[in-house]
Amino acid sequence: MSHSSRACTIWFTGLSGAGKSTITEQLVPMLQARGSKVEILDGDVVRTNLSKGLGFSKEDRDTNIRRIGFVCHLLTRNGVFAVSAAISPYKNIRNEVRAQIKDFVEVYVKASLETCIQRDVKGLYKKALAGEIKEFTGVSDPYEPPENPEVVCYTEQETPEESARKIISRLEELGYLPAAMRHSDGVQRTKSATLAAQAV
Amino acid sequence: MSHSSRACTIWFTGLSGAGKSTITEQLVPMLQARGSKVEILDGDVVRTNLSKGLGFSKEDRDTNIRRIGFVCHLLTRNGVFAVSAAISPYKNIRNEVRAQIKDFVEVYVKASLETCIQRDVKGLYKKALAGEIKEFTGVSDPYEPPENPEVVCYTEQETPEESARKIISRLEELGYLPAAMRHSDGVQRTKSATLAAQAV
Repeated sequence: MSHSSRACTIWFTGLSGAGKSTITEQLVPMLQARGSKVEILDGDVVRTNLSKGLGFSKEDRDTNIRRIGFVCHLLTRNGVFAVSAAISPYKNIRNEVRAQIKDFVEVYVKASLETCIQRDVKGLYKKALAGEIKEFTGVSDPYEPPENPEVVCYTEQETPEESARKIISRLEELGYLPAAMRHSDGVQRTKSATLAAQAV
Repeated sequence: MSHSSRACTIWFTGLSGAGKSTITEQLVPMLQARGSKVEILDGDVVRTNLSKGLGFSKEDRDTNIRRIGFVCHLLTRNGVFAVSAAISPYKNIRNEVRAQIKDFVEVYVKASLETCIQRDVKGLYKKALAGEIKEFTGVSDPYEPPENPEVVCYTEQETPEESARKIISRLEELGYLPAAMRHSDGVQRTKSATLAAQAV
């Protein structure tokens, strides 16, 4: 199965622990099931392969985000959905990357700081609150939420699957994926799959 | 026109001034005319977008090459011909990148140091020989030629167009491009174009 080669960059932003990677895990197979090519650039992959040696000052964070943006741009203009799952705390640099890539869908993964501290999946908030990690977003470093993101995922109310489905619907609305139709049997199919079924 | 989505990384290596960028300029439109997607990662683009702040020590050069390799890998596994046109002086790191990417065609762009010094397109050899640039490949820093490159371009004997055509032929042999056939009218066509013509 394949569709139009127009792709976009799906740019997550949100606090550590808000749910960016968890939603990505749900989203990627949904995209692949639609015949899309997908690459994930999450914070850890990027810090290892593109940004070793960079720290967490504003300047280094901006450099890191610009590099992710550069790679997302190369992929997206060749028909690949690039998923960036870094924290990406600064608004200006996100908007710079948006202007560069153009086919850019910003997804704000929203959870309160209190919730993220309670979850603390990686144990990083504990260390940050104890002063063992400096420049930790939300604790000792700023986070600037987006003003007009294409999607907001409220991860305190939604399951990761629900959040991922919201993103898929928005990609359909924006023309990056063919629209799905819901049938009387309750099963979602893409238009092309439906047409194929009718042809049988 | 399009063909099988199997692509490869075309990895140039050679001294500054050997002709990597000049051959790339000839090669890229030839690939695009075959319906291939292509991205160029030359030394300057990469130093700006991926490796700002890195110097020219062996360690920094290796980091630079690993980053180019990482991006080439992402592109190539999604059906894009990635062209790396950095000097890439060290054999071990080239082989590391080859092992990672697998679909990897190494092109040794060969010209003697004397020729490169005579050409000195960017005026860099003059500065390097005067000691104004340190760690300059071929002058004050090593260059390790490849032992078994897929292609060697002898740029003292060949035109850039001849070199590019050699690379195209090798890509055909290796199955990354459909084989072209030369006809009695002297015009080269791809097999699929020929079959289409026969069908008319």
